[in-house]
Amino acid sequence: MRRVSESAVRRLSLYLRFLEEFEAKGIETVSSEALAARGGTTSAQVRKDLSFFGSFGKRGLGYPVRDLARRLRDILGLKRSYRVVIVGAGKIGSALAQYRGFGQRGFHIAAVYDSDPAKVGLEWDGQVVRDVSHLERDLEREPMDIAIVSTPAGAAQEVTDRLVRAGIKAILNFAPVHLRVPPGVIVRNVNMALELEALSYALRNR
Amino acid sequence: MRRVSESAVRRLSLYLRFLEEFEAKGIETVSSEALAARGGTTSAQVRKDLSFFGSFGKRGLGYPVRDLARRLRDILGLKRSYRVVIVGAGKIGSALAQYRGFGQRGFHIAAVYDSDPAKVGLEWDGQVVRDVSHLERDLEREPMDIAIVSTPAGAAQEVTDRLVRAGIKAILNFAPVHLRVPPGVIVRNVNMALELEALSYALRNR
Repeated sequence: MRRVSESAVRRLSLYLRFLEEFEAKGIETVSSEALAARGGTTSAQVRKDLSFFGSFGKRGLGYPVRDLARRLRDILGLKRSYRVVIVGAGKIGSALAQYRGFGQRGFHIAAVYDSDPAKVGLEWDGQVVRDVSHLERDLEREPMDIAIVSTPAGAAQEVTDRLVRAGIKAILNFAPVHLRVPPGVIVRNVNMALELEALSYALRNR
Repeated sequence: MRRVSESAVRRLSLYLRFLEEFEAKGIETVSSEALAARGGTTSAQVRKDLSFFGSFGKRGLGYPVRDLARRLRDILGLKRSYRVVIVGAGKIGSALAQYRGFGQRGFHIAAVYDSDPAKVGLEWDGQVVRDVSHLERDLEREPMDIAIVSTPAGAAQEVTDRLVRAGIKAILNFAPVHLRVPPGVIVRNVNMALELEALSYALRNR
């Protein structure tokens, strides 16, 4: 399979959402123009994105909604569910632990950890915050697929090293620091201030 | 000025953070290799990113830390501060309203709105949640530079239309929906589930 850019993967996720909306309305086929309009892109971009993964739809007839949605779920790895551990029960961590959009997509928050005795034992939506000193012991008994690191910057690398040693291969990082990981471990970074800086850049340079 | 990709802007933000750390330690010059190592990229990429904006540093001597940081702040539009309004005081909205990383960068959360009477009047970190029915009246008296939309999906477009009519030119969207805006208004989308899907894609396709 050819290498696909991060932004193309992001568009695939968006196309899947639109297809599922169309499916819920009983619409059977959709044009690249309709997908493009909903996704804020061009029909040429839609056709290019989808052509990476083989041939879908017939010229002039549009894409079959249900089949294309099923293929995109397969491509995006969404035919299975994922067990997600959150380390860091601060404000961002707690918002993520209670975010309903994850479960709908098969991402199950299976455990939340913190090092602060004032937070350990708190219950959020049936999720009890656990003591991070038990992280390795718990991960051995209950393996996780994905970790969300939402600790303060100073703790993020140590937590990441522990997660990687315990076998975690995919990390979503909210700490404002670059995480060093060995080859084979994937890190994606989310930084709220960087998102605002992209806007200030755009305001400054338009 | 040539058009710069979103990922290049993101790297500039990261370089600025590293430069500020170096500056705080009293380091006067830095090599593209050192910046690359901290940012998880290559020195060729660092040189290419910076060369977009003119000539910095001298071959073999590295980049002057303080000057380069100042130039990057200028390029990123960070020499001024921004007034930010948050619409939607749910879990994500409340985490963002209390996120300390924004203020450090000159992004000041100046107002938070919700339509839920149970939330209006709540106080977070000295910020009182306001009734969204007063949005237009307030924006006229207290203009804002950037809006964060963190409403449920169903309310996001209407809120966006109201913000745009009130003069907002830059929106950070956390609602899981594509926002339609007129030309000249910039939208950046943050979607937590999409971030996890990028990881599931990577786990599935490695």
